[in-house]
Amino acid sequence: MADSVPFRRIAVIGTGLIGGSFALAVRAHLPMVEIIGWDRDSASLDRAIARGAVQEKAAGPAEAVRGASLVYVALPVGAIVKSLALIADAAEPDALVTDTGSTKVSIGRAATECFRAKSSLFLGGHPMAGKENSGIESADAGLFKGAPYAIIANQNEANRQTRDFAALVGALGAHVVWCEADTHDWSVGVVSHLPQMLSIALASVVQDETDETGFPLSLAGQGLTDSLRLAGSPYAVWRDILFSNSDNVSHALNRLAQAVEYLQRNLKSAELEQEFRTANEVYALLQKRK
Amino acid sequence: MADSVPFRRIAVIGTGLIGGSFALAVRAHLPMVEIIGWDRDSASLDRAIARGAVQEKAAGPAEAVRGASLVYVALPVGAIVKSLALIADAAEPDALVTDTGSTKVSIGRAATECFRAKSSLFLGGHPMAGKENSGIESADAGLFKGAPYAIIANQNEANRQTRDFAALVGALGAHVVWCEADTHDWSVGVVSHLPQMLSIALASVVQDETDETGFPLSLAGQGLTDSLRLAGSPYAVWRDILFSNSDNVSHALNRLAQAVEYLQRNLKSAELEQEFRTANEVYALLQKRK
Repeated sequence: MADSVPFRRIAVIGTGLIGGSFALAVRAHLPMVEIIGWDRDSASLDRAIARGAVQEKAAGPAEAVRGASLVYVALPVGAIVKSLALIADAAEPDALVTDTGSTKVSIGRAATECFRAKSSLFLGGHPMAGKENSGIESADAGLFKGAPYAIIANQNEANRQTRDFAALVGALGAHVVWCEADTHDWSVGVVSHLPQMLSIALASVVQDETDETGFPLSLAGQGLTDSLRLAGSPYAVWRDILFSNSDNVSHALNRLAQAVEYLQRNLKSAELEQEFRTANEVYALLQKRK
Repeated sequence: MADSVPFRRIAVIGTGLIGGSFALAVRAHLPMVEIIGWDRDSASLDRAIARGAVQEKAAGPAEAVRGASLVYVALPVGAIVKSLALIADAAEPDALVTDTGSTKVSIGRAATECFRAKSSLFLGGHPMAGKENSGIESADAGLFKGAPYAIIANQNEANRQTRDFAALVGALGAHVVWCEADTHDWSVGVVSHLPQMLSIALASVVQDETDETGFPLSLAGQGLTDSLRLAGSPYAVWRDILFSNSDNVSHALNRLAQAVEYLQRNLKSAELEQEFRTANEVYALLQKRK
């Protein structure tokens, strides 16, 4: 049984919502795997220990990485880029280093540089899972269940470690999607960053329109609350994402502006029926995949 | 006890999601009230009887209305406008007729015409509650709980019947919001119709961008699904809303286009931090009200 575990010791760098959820899920599925954690915020790391997500605390990222066969870097994009050189230097020769950053082109570029002369391997990854609330408190062993998990590699050319990691996230309930970094960044620009920007824009209109009488906000029902779920996300998380994917986000916002203009031009036209039908289909597709 | 019930017999015209939920809620709170129902779709009316929402079936709206002290018209906007003359003719002299239409100016105009020479009273209303799925199958005695319920009247000048009706929807758990028809229509243009149009526009961009490889849709996570919850709404419901509120919706879409343009211009600027902070505040406010 122990022979079937490809990663006997895992280092989780960043024990927040994503790192903590990964650790909890691995522990739930493979209790024999050792997990060592590190987080810049030592209180958060203590809570990760208390929750049973990680078993050992490292004093720094390099200490966490030493001896680990899998290094799971769950930090914001900018922090990942900054930490890669140190991690590459400390990683074991046969280790697989993977990250969870929300954009992949800039991270991939930094990784190519840092891992050029190393025998350890870097693999970009991105679990398309999240919650309104961040932090280890919200971590959940089931977070990845049913969610797409982007792996930045060609499935046909994947080596053993990459295949092992894909099998692991599959075992945790995620649906592995193999793709290139630029396909990933364009895709998340549309399906993740665009909805985020729209919820910010919608909140801003609601706020600007609301006057001293309390209208229109006083008439808001569940529809607005649902539409603004992403509006609870902190800028700290999005700053790096928008900086590293601004071209794709800008393209997606252009497309959205065109779609809004089309709706506006056709508010009283039968054309709108087709737009609703398309939307109903996209909605049904997403429901079916749940 | 029976004396404290202001409406002893209620006619529900349209026993779908809203009419059915209202009937179920009234029955749960005031089991002594008789409810007679009518629906164009006789199978839906039979299911409303089977669910215990209504106790009697009427053969037509006029038959339902006769003898009722409260007439609850829960139809789409266009059908409400069309049915008001017939209902005004059949209503008892002391009856209160109220509707649940999503826009209030056009309905109010039609009601003024139809009830001009009558001693029965018309009161516009709008429960800001809904679900992805329509129909009596989705009706729920708790649907109005915690939701705003617009009543188109001046609270200080409200007569006994209007105050009784406001007390009734308050007893069902709704939060009564007194307002004028044009304040209502402008407000729902921003907090209800704009989010709806945005979800249609977002779905259309996702659909247009998705190519034969399945990207970007294959990377969609919960964020997109939440943002597209309203995209499941059928055009049949929205056609009348958009026709009767096109000026307000168009204004809201203009404001949104400006907000999107501002975000796009500032994707890499610190200005965005303030936009996120505003959105976080609006989100927190909506959460607190839940």
